[in-house]
Amino acid sequence: MPELRKDPILGRWIIISQERRKRPTDFIVEEVRGAGGFCPLCPGNESTTPSEVLAYRYDHRNEKNSSNWLVRVVPNKYPALIIEGDLGKEGEGLYDRMNGIGAHEVIIESPNHGDAFTFLPPERMILVFKAYRDRIKDLENDPRFRYVMIFKNFGKAAGASLEHSHSQLIALPILPRMIVSELAGALSYYKYKERCVFCDIIRQEIQQDVRVVCQNDHFITITPFAPRTPFEMWILPKVHSSTYQKEDDYKFAFLTDIFSETLRRLDACIPNIPYNFVLHTQPLRSAEIDHFHWHFEIMPKLTSIAGFEWGSGFYINPMPPEEAALYLRESLEKKQGELCEKDTAG
Amino acid sequence: MPELRKDPILGRWIIISQERRKRPTDFIVEEVRGAGGFCPLCPGNESTTPSEVLAYRYDHRNEKNSSNWLVRVVPNKYPALIIEGDLGKEGEGLYDRMNGIGAHEVIIESPNHGDAFTFLPPERMILVFKAYRDRIKDLENDPRFRYVMIFKNFGKAAGASLEHSHSQLIALPILPRMIVSELAGALSYYKYKERCVFCDIIRQEIQQDVRVVCQNDHFITITPFAPRTPFEMWILPKVHSSTYQKEDDYKFAFLTDIFSETLRRLDACIPNIPYNFVLHTQPLRSAEIDHFHWHFEIMPKLTSIAGFEWGSGFYINPMPPEEAALYLRESLEKKQGELCEKDTAG
Repeated sequence: MPELRKDPILGRWIIISQERRKRPTDFIVEEVRGAGGFCPLCPGNESTTPSEVLAYRYDHRNEKNSSNWLVRVVPNKYPALIIEGDLGKEGEGLYDRMNGIGAHEVIIESPNHGDAFTFLPPERMILVFKAYRDRIKDLENDPRFRYVMIFKNFGKAAGASLEHSHSQLIALPILPRMIVSELAGALSYYKYKERCVFCDIIRQEIQQDVRVVCQNDHFITITPFAPRTPFEMWILPKVHSSTYQKEDDYKFAFLTDIFSETLRRLDACIPNIPYNFVLHTQPLRSAEIDHFHWHFEIMPKLTSIAGFEWGSGFYINPMPPEEAALYLRESLEKKQGELCEKDTAG
Repeated sequence: MPELRKDPILGRWIIISQERRKRPTDFIVEEVRGAGGFCPLCPGNESTTPSEVLAYRYDHRNEKNSSNWLVRVVPNKYPALIIEGDLGKEGEGLYDRMNGIGAHEVIIESPNHGDAFTFLPPERMILVFKAYRDRIKDLENDPRFRYVMIFKNFGKAAGASLEHSHSQLIALPILPRMIVSELAGALSYYKYKERCVFCDIIRQEIQQDVRVVCQNDHFITITPFAPRTPFEMWILPKVHSSTYQKEDDYKFAFLTDIFSETLRRLDACIPNIPYNFVLHTQPLRSAEIDHFHWHFEIMPKLTSIAGFEWGSGFYINPMPPEEAALYLRESLEKKQGELCEKDTAG
């Protein structure tokens, strides 16, 4: 049984997940699952994954675990947390622990093994954003869970262990420190200004127009003022909204447009760059609030995190976000230009 | 001029350090300085580093920048922060920034290029701990600085860019988030219990004796209850003390003993494992306080940090600290045993 443990000084929770026992030397080489030709996420291999919890199919027959899916969500075969059991909270002297209860799922973003999320056609990418919402809504019914984390690791350097394009979901019985800190920071700004700090950021970014990467009617992509890594980007809805899982399909069409453009701009700057993205939304079963604003944070993985960042939560970033935004704003157009040059030269 | 910027939601400061302008493609290959035979940190090459700010020499002549040193501290040639100038704090709408004023120094731990910190003889390792103290005390005189971070990256995976054994120091005009959170957490425990949380941890660890790696009269090494990575370890003074820079040479002899044993135990588990360590001590010019306790955190770099950890500040660790402690406790003895077996076999 995995275990959740809380650091008594910082209040930081960690998961001790021992699904396979390991000896020290097992850590030396990082395992890549699904290598060697066989991919458990490919159509036809549905029986090699746990039974699906959601799938969108193209012919609407919806026969469970059949191969005609476009997006498929399955429990992780090697979950960090397990779904059955009670929380079993207990103390041990000054320490707190509970059972590692939670959900750990894999969102398979395309049936085609070679597809990259960045280049999915919009009518397919939108299904991924809907799947995120529909899974959160479903897990919201389980009173043991307080938060659902959605994230994607692209590229080995960013932690991906399977090649086939996928993102992950973890439902947690506690609030992660990131969301606790973000809610607290946003609330303290709201108390002082009576405005949402994210709404104020969007207003200032549009007005200054030096860190805006792209925008459409409903969304904006910026390089944040204090980015942790070169090319860090945030995608935010322009109109205040605190809860991702309450958005409807109409909004997701615009989200797809901007997400796709944002990732293609990044790829045009540095082809195939590894990245992580994480959805930041409200805790489960919360009413809509005025001080928090859901968004995605995209963090390219370029520089390695060394001692300084590790110990201090303090980052050194060699590229100002204004410069990153400039590169990103010009990247697609420049690439287009290069292709045209090649065309005329050939 | 480097710049310090504050995230308006989290209050997290980052450094934008642009000492060399970079284009996107410059990030792809990580630079290793001092490769190709020439090492700027080796004796004889003193003129290739900025002039030293501290050195311990074996013959006490102390001629500045001469080659007869045992430990030498020099400003970083490519500093993330610069020492000259005023803080120039300013707002920009809702954003806060200040000049990137600070010190960034390199502590060269040995004159011998091939020495590993782990295996330095005690009479040499102690000089490194004294150098940390003496540099912090010196920088404490500069009223612009509020904190000094001391850290070491060993191995390329942990961020080291020079082979020659060294640690680093960064003096900051702000308090890093790590120390703010730790002080706040420790204070809230103290308010409730009127005891130092670290002292309570030490008491409980000695009593339970399942996460203690080793100890001597003055120090203890434990694997913390909620570790972020396999084999994470903390080294703490047994008797309450909040400020590293107030310790005297007598204590550093015991610190050297335990640090050396701790790292050798780690190396016996996984030879040459990359790691980071960071000193956690009180902010500069603070009086001794009852609720904080200085310590070192050692974080081996085994598993890569992926999306989940990045976005959530929430770690998945595949090895319980009790098991790590067991491996560490047996590692040196086992290695000794193996060597003996080899001896008798040969």
